[in-house]
Amino acid sequence: MMDSAPEAGEEMFEVRDLAMTHRITVDAMERLLLPENVVPMLDHGFIRVMDYMGGDEAVVQAARVSYGIGTKTPSDDEALIRYLLRHWHTTPFEMCEVKFHVKLPIFVARQWIRHRTANVNEYSARYSIVKDEFFMPEHDRLKRQSTTNRQGSSSEGYSDEIAEQLLRGLSDTSKAAFDIYALLVSDEVDLTRELARIGLPLSTYTEWYWKIDVHNLMHFLRLRADPHAQEEIRVYAKVMCEVLEAWMPMTMRAFVDYRLNAVTFSGPEMRILLEMLEPEFGGFVNPDHMDGLSKRELAEFKRKIGLAA
Amino acid sequence: MMDSAPEAGEEMFEVRDLAMTHRITVDAMERLLLPENVVPMLDHGFIRVMDYMGGDEAVVQAARVSYGIGTKTPSDDEALIRYLLRHWHTTPFEMCEVKFHVKLPIFVARQWIRHRTANVNEYSARYSIVKDEFFMPEHDRLKRQSTTNRQGSSSEGYSDEIAEQLLRGLSDTSKAAFDIYALLVSDEVDLTRELARIGLPLSTYTEWYWKIDVHNLMHFLRLRADPHAQEEIRVYAKVMCEVLEAWMPMTMRAFVDYRLNAVTFSGPEMRILLEMLEPEFGGFVNPDHMDGLSKRELAEFKRKIGLAA
Amino acid sequence: MMDSAPEAGEEMFEVRDLAMTHRITVDAMERLLLPENVVPMLDHGFIRVMDYMGGDEAVVQAARVSYGIGTKTPSDDEALIRYLLRHWHTTPFEMCEVKFHVKLPIFVARQWIRHRTANVNEYSARYSIVKDEFFMPEHDRLKRQSTTNRQGSSSEGYSDEIAEQLLRGLSDTSKAAFDIYALLVSDEVDLTRELARIGLPLSTYTEWYWKIDVHNLMHFLRLRADPHAQEEIRVYAKVMCEVLEAWMPMTMRAFVDYRLNAVTFSGPEMRILLEMLEPEFGGFVNPDHMDGLSKRELAEFKRKIGLAA
Amino acid sequence: MMDSAPEAGEEMFEVRDLAMTHRITVDAMERLLLPENVVPMLDHGFIRVMDYMGGDEAVVQAARVSYGIGTKTPSDDEALIRYLLRHWHTTPFEMCEVKFHVKLPIFVARQWIRHRTANVNEYSARYSIVKDEFFMPEHDRLKRQSTTNRQGSSSEGYSDEIAEQLLRGLSDTSKAAFDIYALLVSDEVDLTRELARIGLPLSTYTEWYWKIDVHNLMHFLRLRADPHAQEEIRVYAKVMCEVLEAWMPMTMRAFVDYRLNAVTFSGPEMRILLEMLEPEFGGFVNPDHMDGLSKRELAEFKRKIGLAA
Repeated sequence: MMDSAPEAGEEMFEVRDLAMTHRITVDAMERLLLPENVVPMLDHGFIRVMDYMGGDEAVVQAARVSYGIGTKTPSDDEALIRYLLRHWHTTPFEMCEVKFHVKLPIFVARQWIRHRTANVNEYSARYSIVKDEFFMPEHDRLKRQSTTNRQGSSSEGYSDEIAEQLLRGLSDTSKAAFDIYALLVSDEVDLTRELARIGLPLSTYTEWYWKIDVHNLMHFLRLRADPHAQEEIRVYAKVMCEVLEAWMPMTMRAFVDYRLNAVTFSGPEMRILLEMLEPEFGGFVNPDHMDGLSKRELAEFKRKIGLAA
Repeated sequence: MMDSAPEAGEEMFEVRDLAMTHRITVDAMERLLLPENVVPMLDHGFIRVMDYMGGDEAVVQAARVSYGIGTKTPSDDEALIRYLLRHWHTTPFEMCEVKFHVKLPIFVARQWIRHRTANVNEYSARYSIVKDEFFMPEHDRLKRQSTTNRQGSSSEGYSDEIAEQLLRGLSDTSKAAFDIYALLVSDEVDLTRELARIGLPLSTYTEWYWKIDVHNLMHFLRLRADPHAQEEIRVYAKVMCEVLEAWMPMTMRAFVDYRLNAVTFSGPEMRILLEMLEPEFGGFVNPDHMDGLSKRELAEFKRKIGLAA
Repeated sequence: MMDSAPEAGEEMFEVRDLAMTHRITVDAMERLLLPENVVPMLDHGFIRVMDYMGGDEAVVQAARVSYGIGTKTPSDDEALIRYLLRHWHTTPFEMCEVKFHVKLPIFVARQWIRHRTANVNEYSARYSIVKDEFFMPEHDRLKRQSTTNRQGSSSEGYSDEIAEQLLRGLSDTSKAAFDIYALLVSDEVDLTRELARIGLPLSTYTEWYWKIDVHNLMHFLRLRADPHAQEEIRVYAKVMCEVLEAWMPMTMRAFVDYRLNAVTFSGPEMRILLEMLEPEFGGFVNPDHMDGLSKRELAEFKRKIGLAA
Repeated sequence: MMDSAPEAGEEMFEVRDLAMTHRITVDAMERLLLPENVVPMLDHGFIRVMDYMGGDEAVVQAARVSYGIGTKTPSDDEALIRYLLRHWHTTPFEMCEVKFHVKLPIFVARQWIRHRTANVNEYSARYSIVKDEFFMPEHDRLKRQSTTNRQGSSSEGYSDEIAEQLLRGLSDTSKAAFDIYALLVSDEVDLTRELARIGLPLSTYTEWYWKIDVHNLMHFLRLRADPHAQEEIRVYAKVMCEVLEAWMPMTMRAFVDYRLNAVTFSGPEMRILLEMLEPEFGGFVNPDHMDGLSKRELAEFKRKIGLAA
């Protein structure tokens, strides 16, 4: 037992033999369990589906016990799922669970882990040797800091020459950090691993198993597939959106309509909006002159109703 | 859609056709999914397994990524699972999930729901008519209140005649409450259901789907299979122990050894215990004369080391 | 120690002497801690504020460390709080905590406890004798079951004579249940309390201490102050809204504008809405003829934009 | 609003004016709120107490409502708290809350954040510039990897010369990473901060506000003040143990006796232990020959009863 640690990921992509089950089974998810359907992410990462429990059908079944709501046809099922999501009856979605194996840079993992309602087993650098892999962005990912959005990037990039120079600087120091690490964990030095790793860059890849129910998954996706999220976590969120679509197509359609594409108007915005919809003013009320909104909210409101802010 | 609510439980015990899956499959759990393996509980309740995800194998797999621990043989797997549980490495057990359908009296449901880390869909008496079913204990379940254990029962019971008289009193008032309920929800009166049900007794049966991961399930079982738990919830916990044993036999054996049958000694108790194990005093030190323990703790200590308290 | 249990609530309304503190202190909350400011609820219940931690100022402070956002004036503070709530930056609100002592009917407690992110200590009927107090609604609270809203009540009530007759039936059976209970826990019978209480009605009052952070409190209030919530829990939610307003006025104003009075339009609704706002159609587009909405959604949409459904 | 971000920590150590409160107040905690009582940690970190709610008294009060247990004297209070902790009646401890401001290396933060039941606001490197501060261990902290404990360090260190050489290597690459960072966030380059930081080492300091209830704090401390925890997180856990001792001395004493110094024996271990305590064998039974324990468990057992393993 407990002999030398396997390489990260080694043997992990074996497919299990088929077996018979009475559980809810979704063909599209069975295909995603196959090793050839691991999705490569960024330069060294990946996502793969490891396990799942339930599906659209389990949501409908839970709604039946909970709200005493019966359905008879598939189109009824979809209407029920849409009703549940629209009215924040979220507990039936908690009846479905999915487990992913994810390889991702540590700075992404640090954002990801803030979602507390998931189960996680992460590769431990106290026990095991870290592979020499770190994330480097593409040239055109390099943008200047936004001056208007304090957490984001502007659209202004760099010449290829400058971009390459910046990336080389980043890459060189990261490689140097891995060289020192290799020395520290070498047989000669054999420094305790929990200390050897402290100089590794935040771009170093880690791996984990991450398991979550679909209600909490949708909450995660709403925040992390959002344009305000950092690009490097958004790409993972987008792949998980595709997985949800393959697995629970009714739920995904409802999620797109009632969450991802939904727009919320505040109380003050609603007052203006309703005035604008009055026949005598309809559409002609000048939103610039409305009271009750701060300048920033006014800009947000105009974007919501399709006027350039 | 959303036509009249089905009777509680109606159509719910249909078995799904067998399908092929690449997921972890456990034969014993597949059998428990069959309708004939619903377990009757108390006088009108039941537990049945609705779905599961993972098994002992998923725990081992998660430990491998998390602690970089490889195993080669089934006996290695069991040793690893025992190691994890013994040393409170609990996250790998969170990788397994089980969903039960439970019918239980409301006073039991109120204790059960205090475990916050589960997913629940309960039958709603705001939407649906409550069936005329309430729990009545057996004669020999009636005991006098314990004078030493403030939450429990003594061993002193009642004559059959008295027991029957007490139960008849309880039963008559509960039936009267259901009669009024039937009137209130009748077509003539048709009182809003959310109010009609407020006179029903705490012994009324409810139903829910209850889904939980195995780490939190074991925590639940440790508290609710314990002799201090109320008998009516213990019987449910015991059946769930049997389910866990069928599903994850390695985990269950470790759970029995390191949790259910484990005994914890406090710091002060350990000082005494170590003295008692010294060759020159071995076993003869009189625990009654030990300092550092309150009278109550002394009694607990003596029970732990097999002396009548 | 552990002598006879105090009457529920006994001695609990003593006020503590004033002491000096360096913590955030809010005058309005200090007044709410006084025994004269316990708020009576329903026929035998109450809410009182027992303790609090933080305030609007703590939210601003947390936003500063988290988002690196500085503020200089009180109006800046309010703008920042509004920005946080509008954009779902909810963690700063978790820095504030409030503890209530609540007396409430068990059927209300059963809805309340479904919110899992709070801390609760409830009066235990396994340990202590339950007081002879149960909730009875007012005459004009009795309404027929709604035919359109499956969980709610219609506006159609009963004559005073009928209402009184229904309530008398409910009251009589509840009193009979308490009479049996009194017999079962009497000195002569002294049945174990955990069983004696099972015939008590769901309208029986219980008490608990309930502690929650402000992010989760607002989530609770949004669901439970909503017109779809049962009247008997809404009255508690409304009092807690008043407490929040007294304690954190900036947060409360933002909560009203961006949550309680906010309206969310789905993706399909937004397409229609944006068309209606086009100058050439403004307000005149007939929403009845819009594609992409189910009949039910169309009704909901028309209510949102102020047209009778 | 939202002008330039303050330096991390700037203005954060101002003390608030004293105010009057009716809440539970603990003098020792009031002193810890003062800026002079910030505790420096490691080479650039710190912990300070920012806020608290409750104390030993709040635990006793909650136990009273929950278990109907009255107390009359301070020694009764302590006995009650000890009883609660000994018997895992943990909800009363959830009634107390504490908020810390912590500055810590990122590799420590990554271990810390795995405790999901806390509230966190962390300094964001997407919004703000990261200070040029990273953790470097002392010479005598450098040890070879343990061969027996897969996650720990052995006692074998290095000569001063070697230690200095290793640390210089680590320090040089970390400094180089900060140099590149300084360039990337400089006014000329002004790369988006979310990317500029990815090359920074895991030893970089971050800051957060961390708020938790006392039940969950004790769980954290039990795991992180343990000898198996990494030294760099243990030092923080130890300081928080001291805070708990100053704040809730009764709870801390119980925590030491029933958790930190408690020893748990498995079912198989208990069988052996009870035999050893039999008068005829007392203390002389050779634990090496006992059945039912694996070699590893036998070693653990011998350590528990004070025999060298």
